Amino acid sequence: MAEPPFKIDNWQLAAAERRQSLYESIPNDYRLPTNLSDLAIAGLLRPEDQAVLQCGILSDLDMEITNITDAPTLVSLMASRQYTAVQVTQAFCKRAAIAQQCLGCLTVFLYESAMRRATELDDYMAQTGKSVGILHGLPICLKDIFDIQGQPTTVGLVSWLPYIATKNATITDSIIAAGGILLAKTSTSQACLMVESINNIFGTVRNPYNPQLSAGGSSGGEAALVAAKGSILGSGTDGGGSIRFPAAFCGLWGIKCSKGRIPAGGCSGPKSGNESVNSGFGPLAKTVASLEVWLRAQLASQPWDVDSSCIPMKWDVSRAERAQGPLTIAVIWDDGVVKPAPPVVRALKIVVDLLKKNGHRIVHLPEEKIKDVHRRATSCFMMSNVQDGGFTVMKHIDSSGEPVVPRTATGSLESRLTAREIFDNHLLRSSLGDEYNDLWQHHQMDAILAPAVAHPAPPHGKYISNSYASIYNMLDYVTGCIPVGSVDLELDKAPPEWYQRQPYDRIEPVRFPYDLGDKEMMDLYSSPEVFKNSPIGVQIVCRRLKEEKCIGILKEIERIQREGLVSI
Amino acid sequence: MAEPPFKIDNWQLAAAERRQSLYESIPNDYRLPTNLSDLAIAGLLRPEDQAVLQCGILSDLDMEITNITDAPTLVSLMASRQYTAVQVTQAFCKRAAIAQQCLGCLTVFLYESAMRRATELDDYMAQTGKSVGILHGLPICLKDIFDIQGQPTTVGLVSWLPYIATKNATITDSIIAAGGILLAKTSTSQACLMVESINNIFGTVRNPYNPQLSAGGSSGGEAALVAAKGSILGSGTDGGGSIRFPAAFCGLWGIKCSKGRIPAGGCSGPKSGNESVNSGFGPLAKTVASLEVWLRAQLASQPWDVDSSCIPMKWDVSRAERAQGPLTIAVIWDDGVVKPAPPVVRALKIVVDLLKKNGHRIVHLPEEKIKDVHRRATSCFMMSNVQDGGFTVMKHIDSSGEPVVPRTATGSLESRLTAREIFDNHLLRSSLGDEYNDLWQHHQMDAILAPAVAHPAPPHGKYISNSYASIYNMLDYVTGCIPVGSVDLELDKAPPEWYQRQPYDRIEPVRFPYDLGDKEMMDLYSSPEVFKNSPIGVQIVCRRLKEEKCIGILKEIERIQREGLVSI
Repeated sequence: MAEPPFKIDNWQLAAAERRQSLYESIPNDYRLPTNLSDLAIAGLLRPEDQAVLQCGILSDLDMEITNITDAPTLVSLMASRQYTAVQVTQAFCKRAAIAQQCLGCLTVFLYESAMRRATELDDYMAQTGKSVGILHGLPICLKDIFDIQGQPTTVGLVSWLPYIATKNATITDSIIAAGGILLAKTSTSQACLMVESINNIFGTVRNPYNPQLSAGGSSGGEAALVAAKGSILGSGTDGGGSIRFPAAFCGLWGIKCSKGRIPAGGCSGPKSGNESVNSGFGPLAKTVASLEVWLRAQLASQPWDVDSSCIPMKWDVSRAERAQGPLTIAVIWDDGVVKPAPPVVRALKIVVDLLKKNGHRIVHLPEEKIKDVHRRATSCFMMSNVQDGGFTVMKHIDSSGEPVVPRTATGSLESRLTAREIFDNHLLRSSLGDEYNDLWQHHQMDAILAPAVAHPAPPHGKYISNSYASIYNMLDYVTGCIPVGSVDLELDKAPPEWYQRQPYDRIEPVRFPYDLGDKEMMDLYSSPEVFKNSPIGVQIVCRRLKEEKCIGILKEIERIQREGLVSI
Repeated sequence: MAEPPFKIDNWQLAAAERRQSLYESIPNDYRLPTNLSDLAIAGLLRPEDQAVLQCGILSDLDMEITNITDAPTLVSLMASRQYTAVQVTQAFCKRAAIAQQCLGCLTVFLYESAMRRATELDDYMAQTGKSVGILHGLPICLKDIFDIQGQPTTVGLVSWLPYIATKNATITDSIIAAGGILLAKTSTSQACLMVESINNIFGTVRNPYNPQLSAGGSSGGEAALVAAKGSILGSGTDGGGSIRFPAAFCGLWGIKCSKGRIPAGGCSGPKSGNESVNSGFGPLAKTVASLEVWLRAQLASQPWDVDSSCIPMKWDVSRAERAQGPLTIAVIWDDGVVKPAPPVVRALKIVVDLLKKNGHRIVHLPEEKIKDVHRRATSCFMMSNVQDGGFTVMKHIDSSGEPVVPRTATGSLESRLTAREIFDNHLLRSSLGDEYNDLWQHHQMDAILAPAVAHPAPPHGKYISNSYASIYNMLDYVTGCIPVGSVDLELDKAPPEWYQRQPYDRIEPVRFPYDLGDKEMMDLYSSPEVFKNSPIGVQIVCRRLKEEKCIGILKEIERIQREGLVSI
């Protein structure tokens, strides 16, 4: 069979046809009435607005079911026969249909096959009295980069429209083996090369809390759908913030694993052969226990036996238990690339205060050293990321004639590195790794608390930089995303210093013009109103392949947030 | 402190001074009498020749101790007070001194510090009644690429002579923490870039079974010293056969781990930033249990907490138990690059017969497919290996004015790849990985049995190719080395077909002229006499990071060899 990119004669037509077939895959009963639909199209309707909840699509049972946000809880309720998988699937499908109409987050809606699968699962349970596995009956979505046999994968590229996967990605197989139900595939940025989800096929994914704002990317469709309760578990990838931006902007927990912890087989998309940036995979969800069950399911099937990309490390449940005893957490308040906006600083302080009150130890890292390391790491990431000069991705874009979506990090002739420069950049990365390693040693930290993004969800296309995220791709660290309330129009007013300070110099503006700088950050954060209703997220950083430890710390933070009674 | 390469004004003088200080580090009592010393210098004396054993250096106790080849056995004999660590260290030091005089395998002889350390260990045991750890009192050597604080590391380069390590490599620390005694550092090829151990400082490492033959490289000093009973455990690295050539040529067991399983911190040498080839580390020894105790010691100290190069995977003792039940083993008889010489084919047959007789299943891989994959993999390795065009290593060679040792794989202007070619080569490597993965899936193999090298130990400088080894660096598989007797002047006569066949076309002769081809293989194997007394080795190949499984299979093969009563 031919491989993408395919030659597309009329890209607008091809994209419109795909949008139409996606529209048709939504059952009539799940369609918003015209008055709401008009608002939704205008980007003025949130999936949880009362008008939507009461428009007749969702029954009381649907509401009851989809308000359960914890995946293991939902599995146990199906195991105890409180709900059937069919009921659960139908409820989430309705929410997914609503989310799609309000947010444009789907690429494939698997309503029919999901309902069939739910029936099979119910039959299995009726006959055997047992669950199929730890994901039994859970409605799960996949970023449109993972293959599902018989379904398209587009990676946000028109030239991929004719592509139909001939087999499942390894993670798809693991989800099915554990009893999960594939509900939908979700939208990304063009070729997954931007930390916002905009492409020429499916348009722009909107934020469920304020559709005028970004949902983040490139796993933005996942985050929007999960946040809108259209799926209980999302499956993303992150080569420079692509799980962390969406999690932060949509108020979710998430984890970016180290490269190789989760199998990469069947993760599609243009392959340039650039191996200098570490992409990590992971789930997005509304509870930490949900993240863990996804991870356990991925590793339960011993995927390393079929997928050589995967490191043979079982999920160690005992190490993932909620972190007890005093933790030592270092805080990064400012990376010297982009100063975090006031709500993000407030979120860090909230978490720091909660940690302290619960007996954990906060250590301070040397400010200038951190800025120096992070500025060099940002440059290193930017250079590595686009070192092939866009050669591969431009073939995939040009093959359909679609335009490049602004800010897509394609690379260019200016960004192309010579082999020697690539090697030098590898040496720089190694040296940054050593310097960071010395920090771990010296401060005996369990984890680092840092912004995930310098700002809350911005208006579409207006994000500044992924510097807080990308350094941990270079270092291949595990990072967990923590939601910390949302923007407060009073508390998050910027002090006068915010507008008067000297911005940091911008990094690699010629080679990597896709990111903006600290000056633009100052301009963007003109007032909290710009980010109205946006969730805020921060990240917890653990060392390479310490996924269990990261989950254990996230559990502790989730507990102290719940019990902390802090108004956020 | 300044970093290598250092400018050296008179390289011959600097090298001679280092040789002199090495010579002086050998106690007078450990020096061979003149008649033997003359033979040794001429390369005509083996460390275990009767004349050597009886020349007065070795006492009966020394002989008794050093004839123990199994590391755990020796540890338990020290624990039961049969021997003291001082007795053991002294005995092995004598053998090491003899090995050095016969074979030229050392770069640093740590006699005095080893004896001090042995005394401390004996004191510790006397006071506490306990061993320090699982390597308590074992004399261990390190390839001269691993740093020992306060000692030089040269990596076979004159421009490194002034370099003195300021701290231990991570593996050095682990050995010390487990109670091991550092006895010596051992000689390599120039910059570790050849599968034979020849450099301009320490000369050529000779084979302990026939000093006119190669000991292999680049971990050749390790293998020669361990084979000559001058150390019970060697510590090597392998980026393209550098553990497997020495193990095969010197009749040792060995294991090349996947990249990252063993910590790489403090593994010195010129760093080019070329990350396209996977180098794996591992031990060389005379028993499989010795290999395992080295691996256990490396991972017991949780090195991933201090060394981010290391994957946090504990040694799983239960998975490393001797493989029970029928194994499924595939055999590669010929990789289509270089046809294995008759003794190697005989060794494969011996192992296959033993496996079959013990109830294991042998599967045959599709011959032409294997040749196709291996030929492409060989080209991929060759191109990746020298893709920087020698830029870095030539700085380290030219800085002293020393000449390039013939066949050192420095790279050249002709071998330099563009960034695009590097990326394409990564894609080829991925695709080869997928093709190999399909073979594992299809044949449900536990392991592959293959030649480690196409021939036994050849005369110095005459090896042909590392094609059987390097493919498993590209794939990052774990491979274990199996000694299978030695060359038999009758049984290993080549049949007429050997001399009449059409040789395979040579691969990348311009970009990678350092390897020879199948035509040269035919010429080299003119008769078994050329390889007289050489050990023969083969390898067992397991998937990535399956070190425990590999050890379990090696244990089973060791058992059936012992019990097999097969004349080899």
